[in-house]
Amino acid sequence: MKKEIGAKPIIFPTPVLIIGTYNEDGTPNAMNVAWGGICGSVPPAVSIAVRKERKTYENICSRKAFTVNIPNEDLMDEADFFGVVSGKKMNKFDHVDLKTVKAENVDAPYIEEFPVVAECKVLESIEVGEHVIIIGEIVNVLAEDSVLNEKGVIDVEKVNAIGFDPADNCYTTTGKVVGKAFSAGVPILKRAKGEE
Amino acid sequence: MKKEIGAKPIIFPTPVLIIGTYNEDGTPNAMNVAWGGICGSVPPAVSIAVRKERKTYENICSRKAFTVNIPNEDLMDEADFFGVVSGKKMNKFDHVDLKTVKAENVDAPYIEEFPVVAECKVLESIEVGEHVIIIGEIVNVLAEDSVLNEKGVIDVEKVNAIGFDPADNCYTTTGKVVGKAFSAGVPILKRAKGEE
Repeated sequence: MKKEIGAKPIIFPTPVLIIGTYNEDGTPNAMNVAWGGICGSVPPAVSIAVRKERKTYENICSRKAFTVNIPNEDLMDEADFFGVVSGKKMNKFDHVDLKTVKAENVDAPYIEEFPVVAECKVLESIEVGEHVIIIGEIVNVLAEDSVLNEKGVIDVEKVNAIGFDPADNCYTTTGKVVGKAFSAGVPILKRAKGEE
Repeated sequence: MKKEIGAKPIIFPTPVLIIGTYNEDGTPNAMNVAWGGICGSVPPAVSIAVRKERKTYENICSRKAFTVNIPNEDLMDEADFFGVVSGKKMNKFDHVDLKTVKAENVDAPYIEEFPVVAECKVLESIEVGEHVIIIGEIVNVLAEDSVLNEKGVIDVEKVNAIGFDPADNCYTTTGKVVGKAFSAGVPILKRAKGEE
């Protein structure tokens, strides 16, 4: 039996994306964005929704670049801090024990301690209600050695990224791998084709 | 130490969104979309990336509506099946034991067995490379009784939505709640302000 929850921004899972940008004076800023996700494969692209009054919006407009830094469980407090104060009010990196590094391929900083980072160049933007959706081309992904498997592929369980729960404003961990994509449904497909 | 992974569509977590639409003859179709996410609060909005050659793209263009159905671990095989065959080749619902229901607020079907559903009306669309990003206003969310807490709020652990791992093409479960948003970082903020 379904209950009506109303018109709310709710799907599961939603990510916790820490957006790294440079301020006009070259100091780094970071913002916590849950409204975003991958939005294309060719070219690889990510979308993030940012309000115009944010420092991050100004920074992205002027440098046309940002990084997406993926926090794990150990970085939850810092990730949340990036979301509870504006970069217009303080230099957030003065208050956390994290190191920023200039990205090689874009004019934006990434955070060294974060396990996975995407370097992005702005492709497009579009206003939707109170947010501007900024679409960035992912020109490179960086990952810590410690989250790679023996084939050099990122291991989702080792990343243990946190997610945002938009229904009750919580953070969750990533669970376990339970199946392979483009594979789990193949038995149903074979039955449908009369092959089993 | 960071390793270069290259220009790939990778962030964590990404969702598994089963998009419900009506074909021109009124039969239901479903597609598996991992490239998407919430993209606005006022109005609540979700974006999904769909290639133009998909049946779902045609259906959304003609009815200006779709549903986003969130699968849990028990529905992984069906969710994957929706992603491994085209609605142009078969009526997918002939081959799964799932019931579709006409959404009350939009011209699209939702899947009764899925724990959380968002009813969406098309607001905008924008082409990015090989995909069209379709932005839908969420006009209502439906949730199963069984995933609500005692306050009637959706419990993310009870939903146990699956996520897609874009690095190694796996599905993962949702983990545990590990903290409160807009709260976990407040101690850092208080220290920054000299309040502690």
